[in-house]
Amino acid sequence: VEPGFPTGLLVTLDRSSRSGVRSQLERELREAVQQRRLAPGAKLPPSRTLASELAIARSVVVEAYTQLVAEGYFEATQGAGTRVCRIPAPPDAKRSSSPARLNMAFTTGLPDPAFFPRKEWLRCYRAAVDACTDEVLGFPEPRGRIELRAVLADYLARVRAVRSSADEIVICNGISQAIAVVCRAMRARGASTIAVEDPCFEAHRRLVAACGLTPVPIGVDEHGIEVSRLIEADVAMVLVAPAHSYPSGAVLSPERRLALADWARQRDALIIEDDYDAEFRFDRTPVGALQGLAPGNVVHAGSVSKVLNPSLRIGWLAVPDWLLGDVIDTKFIEDVATETFGQLALARFIETGAFTRHIRRVRPLYRARRDQLLDALRSQAPDLRPQGAVAGLHLYVRLPQDVREGDLIAAAKENGLRVEGAARHWAAANETEPAVLVGYGMLRESTILRDVAALIAAVRDAGGPRTGGDAGAPPPVARR
Amino acid sequence: VEPGFPTGLLVTLDRSSRSGVRSQLERELREAVQQRRLAPGAKLPPSRTLASELAIARSVVVEAYTQLVAEGYFEATQGAGTRVCRIPAPPDAKRSSSPARLNMAFTTGLPDPAFFPRKEWLRCYRAAVDACTDEVLGFPEPRGRIELRAVLADYLARVRAVRSSADEIVICNGISQAIAVVCRAMRARGASTIAVEDPCFEAHRRLVAACGLTPVPIGVDEHGIEVSRLIEADVAMVLVAPAHSYPSGAVLSPERRLALADWARQRDALIIEDDYDAEFRFDRTPVGALQGLAPGNVVHAGSVSKVLNPSLRIGWLAVPDWLLGDVIDTKFIEDVATETFGQLALARFIETGAFTRHIRRVRPLYRARRDQLLDALRSQAPDLRPQGAVAGLHLYVRLPQDVREGDLIAAAKENGLRVEGAARHWAAANETEPAVLVGYGMLRESTILRDVAALIAAVRDAGGPRTGGDAGAPPPVARR
Repeated sequence: VEPGFPTGLLVTLDRSSRSGVRSQLERELREAVQQRRLAPGAKLPPSRTLASELAIARSVVVEAYTQLVAEGYFEATQGAGTRVCRIPAPPDAKRSSSPARLNMAFTTGLPDPAFFPRKEWLRCYRAAVDACTDEVLGFPEPRGRIELRAVLADYLARVRAVRSSADEIVICNGISQAIAVVCRAMRARGASTIAVEDPCFEAHRRLVAACGLTPVPIGVDEHGIEVSRLIEADVAMVLVAPAHSYPSGAVLSPERRLALADWARQRDALIIEDDYDAEFRFDRTPVGALQGLAPGNVVHAGSVSKVLNPSLRIGWLAVPDWLLGDVIDTKFIEDVATETFGQLALARFIETGAFTRHIRRVRPLYRARRDQLLDALRSQAPDLRPQGAVAGLHLYVRLPQDVREGDLIAAAKENGLRVEGAARHWAAANETEPAVLVGYGMLRESTILRDVAALIAAVRDAGGPRTGGDAGAPPPVARR
Repeated sequence: VEPGFPTGLLVTLDRSSRSGVRSQLERELREAVQQRRLAPGAKLPPSRTLASELAIARSVVVEAYTQLVAEGYFEATQGAGTRVCRIPAPPDAKRSSSPARLNMAFTTGLPDPAFFPRKEWLRCYRAAVDACTDEVLGFPEPRGRIELRAVLADYLARVRAVRSSADEIVICNGISQAIAVVCRAMRARGASTIAVEDPCFEAHRRLVAACGLTPVPIGVDEHGIEVSRLIEADVAMVLVAPAHSYPSGAVLSPERRLALADWARQRDALIIEDDYDAEFRFDRTPVGALQGLAPGNVVHAGSVSKVLNPSLRIGWLAVPDWLLGDVIDTKFIEDVATETFGQLALARFIETGAFTRHIRRVRPLYRARRDQLLDALRSQAPDLRPQGAVAGLHLYVRLPQDVREGDLIAAAKENGLRVEGAARHWAAANETEPAVLVGYGMLRESTILRDVAALIAAVRDAGGPRTGGDAGAPPPVARR
């Protein structure tokens, strides 16, 4: 499969050794790079291939690759570690040659994989495929399956006070594509700019630009997007997450909600409402979607990525009538339609109540993790200032002024901890106050105190005298 | 669910009547429109709602809606019949008030839904979800799952002589999105034009334009795209289907294959190879993919849409190294990644040999349908000239010069037969020779003679003295 990669020569595993197979494999691969037996730029074999050649579980290979990516020996474009780094491993990578896997406990944007209700999901999927007629296997509908659109219209009305019908729902591959089809439909109608929150999810700023719209950053404070500044700006479109701005965690205040809806109606503007994690709200009654205030001026976007899992790639739009045809056309041209069976499975999952039961089950678990995290931060590091705690799965933690974000990320990495910086989500990444994003979706009760201690130790390390020059590795790719 | 639609008033079904429930429902709805009890523009309830109110199977409602869309009473944006037509039903819709469903036997671009191996698919899907680790439920990889990329690299090498590794495969939502991410990645590198075949799949011409590239039509004759004209044109990119040009059905000749690959290498140009139905080749040994001749200059694109079903929305790219990072970035920005479980199911489906077994099983069935169609056309209408029969699931049938395509489509519809015109796939739709596309993926042995007779009758009807003016309804939305 991979000629030119002489696996047999490179890796020798001693199964009788007390050190695990994985750490042996990591050491072997690390040394192969250090000794230039694996040249810079060389391709690694697919994990499947190597696992089969070595007669070990593929997961062991995947973990070893991941570790060596984290250590800077291997290079992974977008997550698949399959090439030896072209850039020589930094000297400190050698220093930390004890096989310390990076601790991902604070990863943001991901629900706990252990919560995914796979039995229930499989039951719904099987029932959907078993029941499907030839019509289902005909041309896929660009708008999405009526079964899912119908239950979503009901669900969104009930839970989010969205005012729409099944006709006005369009199924997309998660929120990113949902935003893309709206932006492209508007671009084709002549739109050229779109206001975005500052800070906002960095990938979305790139996305609207890829759709041909110039992003116009509008500040976010503790009450959400500054609507007065939006009004001053010469824009007729805005992308906003009123329920839980990312990454700041701000919730749009009631006054600004009304002002935003008024602006849209008076300006005849379009609001794209990114409702990415509205299901996880902890401290007060959920506010309804902005869409309910101005259904003719708001496109509402949501997905199952936070409630179930981003791997499912199912999102939706509720689209005002005047824009609906254009959005459906755009979706058709882009990729015909979203995959059908997953839609039918999700329709059953929602219809049978499994979706609501699942939210009811996991919400208190996430809330408990958040509370533990806040308590630990408060007691161990009162000078850190967590924000945005009322909802979602992450905190925005502001750092003492003398801490550089890049230094902290490097110091944390040195201690085996992965930390996400906030700077990249700001329009002017160089001028921001230092902050990190601390996810709690995957925190475990048994390890949280240790994890928080490691984070704080890294803050202290980074707060010491600067070592000068750049702090080393760039922050990891941020995903929401 | 749908206030304002007084179902109870509108539809009365007599279950003791000898006429079927469906034809009763169709008649009731038709009369409601004719009598303006259902106003132009009024929304119909979702089929699920109406079915449950009437206590009938939802499929009956779906079929009735479909029929009334075909008759012009209801309006369906992209296939979901849910609104009363705003345009008054044409007078001839009343004439054909006998409930004649449109016969879809000649639909192109769709494999027979009855062939979909749903048990085997479900088995693979269940095994994939059962086996998946937390890592699978982490952030989805923009490039696609390594399990699928690894088996696809093997499969494409074996079956299509594609030269790529698992690293160079990128999973997309079918071929449309695959083309879109390549075009956008090239646009970002400064590309502004792309040569396309003339005729080519109309939606792809719109797609490349949506990606910011100006399509430059290059003629296709019986030997495929005219490479000499491509060389004359000032372009550095081309979208081409060498194995089976759509819709003409031309196969690129060996000489032109070499010339095309040479051109790409010398011009440092990029070829997007659309390999959409290469698995269905009947009359000679398959030629390998063009990609194998110039792996550094060809992006190879394929999908499961013709072998399994377009509802699965799984396609792939094999991308040259120099473009790979840009393509993965584009895919990430557009929609993060393609849905995961379907990828894992497909990996198993291919790995266990089910994919190859399936192709081996259905290829002779499609071939038999094609042969029957050709025989019937030859004996009943020797003046029609079918082309492109060596591969795929459709014929390009040229019509006598005195037949206008629009007239034929209208005449066929009058006789209850849906026929797809070829004109829309040409760059200059008004100047083309009259032709229709005749799919045989869904032909049944028992009805083929009747279906062909209906088609020929429509040709004869349309060949008579013109009735003047436009021929009525536009042709249905073409899908490949």
